[in-house]
Amino acid sequence: MTHETYIKEAGEQFLEELKAFLRIPSVSARAEYHKHVLEAADFLTDQLSKAGMQRIETFLYGGNPIVYAEKMVSEEFPTVLIYGHYDVQPAEPLELWVSPPFSPEIRNGKIYARGACDDKAQVLLVIKALETMFACGTFPCNVKLIIEGEEEIGSVSLETFIIENKALLQTDSFLVCDTSMPDENHPVLITGLRGICYWELSLTVADEDVHSGMFGGIAPNAADVLCRLIGMMKDANGKVLIPGFYGDMDPIDWQNLTEEERLTECPSLDVNGFHSGYIENGPKTVIPAKAFAKISSRLAPGQDYQHVHQCMENYLRENLPEGVCYDLQLLSGHNAVRTQTDTIDYRAAEKALENQFGTFPESKKIGGTIPVVSMMQRHLEVNPLLMGFGLENDNIHAPNERFLVANYYKGMLTLIDFFSRYGAAFEQFKTASTQILA
Amino acid sequence: MTHETYIKEAGEQFLEELKAFLRIPSVSARAEYHKHVLEAADFLTDQLSKAGMQRIETFLYGGNPIVYAEKMVSEEFPTVLIYGHYDVQPAEPLELWVSPPFSPEIRNGKIYARGACDDKAQVLLVIKALETMFACGTFPCNVKLIIEGEEEIGSVSLETFIIENKALLQTDSFLVCDTSMPDENHPVLITGLRGICYWELSLTVADEDVHSGMFGGIAPNAADVLCRLIGMMKDANGKVLIPGFYGDMDPIDWQNLTEEERLTECPSLDVNGFHSGYIENGPKTVIPAKAFAKISSRLAPGQDYQHVHQCMENYLRENLPEGVCYDLQLLSGHNAVRTQTDTIDYRAAEKALENQFGTFPESKKIGGTIPVVSMMQRHLEVNPLLMGFGLENDNIHAPNERFLVANYYKGMLTLIDFFSRYGAAFEQFKTASTQILA
Repeated sequence: MTHETYIKEAGEQFLEELKAFLRIPSVSARAEYHKHVLEAADFLTDQLSKAGMQRIETFLYGGNPIVYAEKMVSEEFPTVLIYGHYDVQPAEPLELWVSPPFSPEIRNGKIYARGACDDKAQVLLVIKALETMFACGTFPCNVKLIIEGEEEIGSVSLETFIIENKALLQTDSFLVCDTSMPDENHPVLITGLRGICYWELSLTVADEDVHSGMFGGIAPNAADVLCRLIGMMKDANGKVLIPGFYGDMDPIDWQNLTEEERLTECPSLDVNGFHSGYIENGPKTVIPAKAFAKISSRLAPGQDYQHVHQCMENYLRENLPEGVCYDLQLLSGHNAVRTQTDTIDYRAAEKALENQFGTFPESKKIGGTIPVVSMMQRHLEVNPLLMGFGLENDNIHAPNERFLVANYYKGMLTLIDFFSRYGAAFEQFKTASTQILA
Repeated sequence: MTHETYIKEAGEQFLEELKAFLRIPSVSARAEYHKHVLEAADFLTDQLSKAGMQRIETFLYGGNPIVYAEKMVSEEFPTVLIYGHYDVQPAEPLELWVSPPFSPEIRNGKIYARGACDDKAQVLLVIKALETMFACGTFPCNVKLIIEGEEEIGSVSLETFIIENKALLQTDSFLVCDTSMPDENHPVLITGLRGICYWELSLTVADEDVHSGMFGGIAPNAADVLCRLIGMMKDANGKVLIPGFYGDMDPIDWQNLTEEERLTECPSLDVNGFHSGYIENGPKTVIPAKAFAKISSRLAPGQDYQHVHQCMENYLRENLPEGVCYDLQLLSGHNAVRTQTDTIDYRAAEKALENQFGTFPESKKIGGTIPVVSMMQRHLEVNPLLMGFGLENDNIHAPNERFLVANYYKGMLTLIDFFSRYGAAFEQFKTASTQILA
């Protein structure tokens, strides 16, 4: 049976399984969803077993389970390690969803659900591609999978897993299936990612809130202080004013930046959340004693996340008014990544994408961060291959996240094509090397 | 029976009734408490009836009931109109209360509950003073009471009530029992109040939140914009930088201000609440499309609240980046007040306070706002008399609000003394005037 026929026959079933995966609210950022995070890991274990993977294990390093599986076909074959994640972002604000975030619904050829694009459909299409190849009896590679449950909270325990399992994770190619295409006709391979620092900052100016009638004009106001502090972090152009923030980057020509450059070559700094004082209905003339913000910065090549964190600490220490206490927590820190493109797997991926989508893929840098990529590059010295099938307007991390159903199946076919080409090219390369050496 | 004996005998009962009043969560700012607001009005109706008041009515002008009662003893007697309010501030943040806000508890001679000081104990001690005088058969004044249920939300329907009931509210003295003493040994009469503008401001920069990995550095961030906007409203000294804000005030000498002057002679500007983006646990790399703040300004003499509101509008219009929509609502607006002290009722109040507290009361300006005072001065041209029995550290509008139990009884005795002295002095003044005219 051809791969195409197999996928055609199993297609309805594959879609039902995706819906079942999407119904699990595996929100890693919220403790109350923890049992669903575990449920998603169990779901994957079943799926991997059904697909024909071997040595299926879950690893625990103090956080959510890391699901591992492999299929070692032959020592002669190259190994592809594939990464994905089964956790999802919180779905709030719920009122902006057209259909509930954990009740997947197909509208206009897209499946709507939290995690549809990021990263559940992409994880499952990898597994279904493997199932299809195993079922059709052709697999020219060895394959290893790691699917974690903490990507949306900074991959906190993944780094320990990688460091402590270097032998297990040895690979020739490292494929990450968690990225997007500009639109359905334009496949891309991602060659650049920004890094990140994600902080929680809280300020305390007094033990208790006080009444503005009795203290307005003399008591410090935590919300005011935090607004001032954040308001001074950037100028009107978006240039960050925190001393040392740009580190070893080349100077930025702020007058002549394209949007593309702003997004991929420049760091950003954003307030992701802010809370202080009374925010319920009606007026309350309270002077808040505490204020709380989530702030994050996307980092560019040339910035070191530990240095940026130190700059933020210094900025706070130097700019906070006397008597204000602060607590700054770095929840996540990763450096930017640039990948190599003159590699066998990159070329195989280019061909596979061209073959399936009818357009030769461009290489593209993006503004996001995939922590595992920084980690794998650092600890295993692998060169990542970033091939994904989401669309840029799939609303990841936002209400009404979706995934193009057609790309679910095209993704499977592309991966099958990639494995075939990579296996063959690797064999040729080996033969050629042997001949040259001989 | 003397007044003292009556209060001694009824004292336990009076305290139980105060506890019953404090158990009613009459939070006017929150719709879900509305039935308790009505319950508090009913409670007062019963209390007034029990005290011997007449013509007990509730007035409705689109909001919470205004409870009215009177006792017209003689046309020869002067009339005292007394104001209080039965609504309370929201109790949040609940976790900072030692005992629950609506389960009154006495610790170290103080009764702890939301509304204990502001204004329930003070309302009830007025009613109990009247009950005592009626029971003991001595009352040398006519008395009218208005007790509203919207003080904490800006007395929104009170102004219409006043304008439409001017004849009903005619009075010789206008007593407000809703203020505080610096400590239990130092009674004061309040002669100055600040005014207020209280706003809700919301900003919208986009239809939906977006992901900082895909838009960080290019998408506008509503929280960032609001922080910048608020951060630029004041300088580091607290001087407001909104053009026109200080109106017709004399220039402020910012270098030589005492704390007292800052609080009573200068306007303030405070963020009372701020909310934007994701504030639950864990990281979420979202760029918020909306940001929301509650902002208020205490106004000094020389500022007109309508002018200040216009200045705020102009400031927003001129400083908001292109493409940002704002919505500014003025929830409450009142001008500052200065009262006369060379009046019969003021002198009677001084003597009564001296007699009960053993210390001659000082006149004092405060930084708070009592909307009814501005309104009554404007519409009935009465000169307010502000005599209250709270303590400045009673934590009004904050967690662990309390009221000194001793002042509950001392307040009753002071009011009885005040009515007696005022009635007698008014009679003397009338006799003297008649003699001079004869």
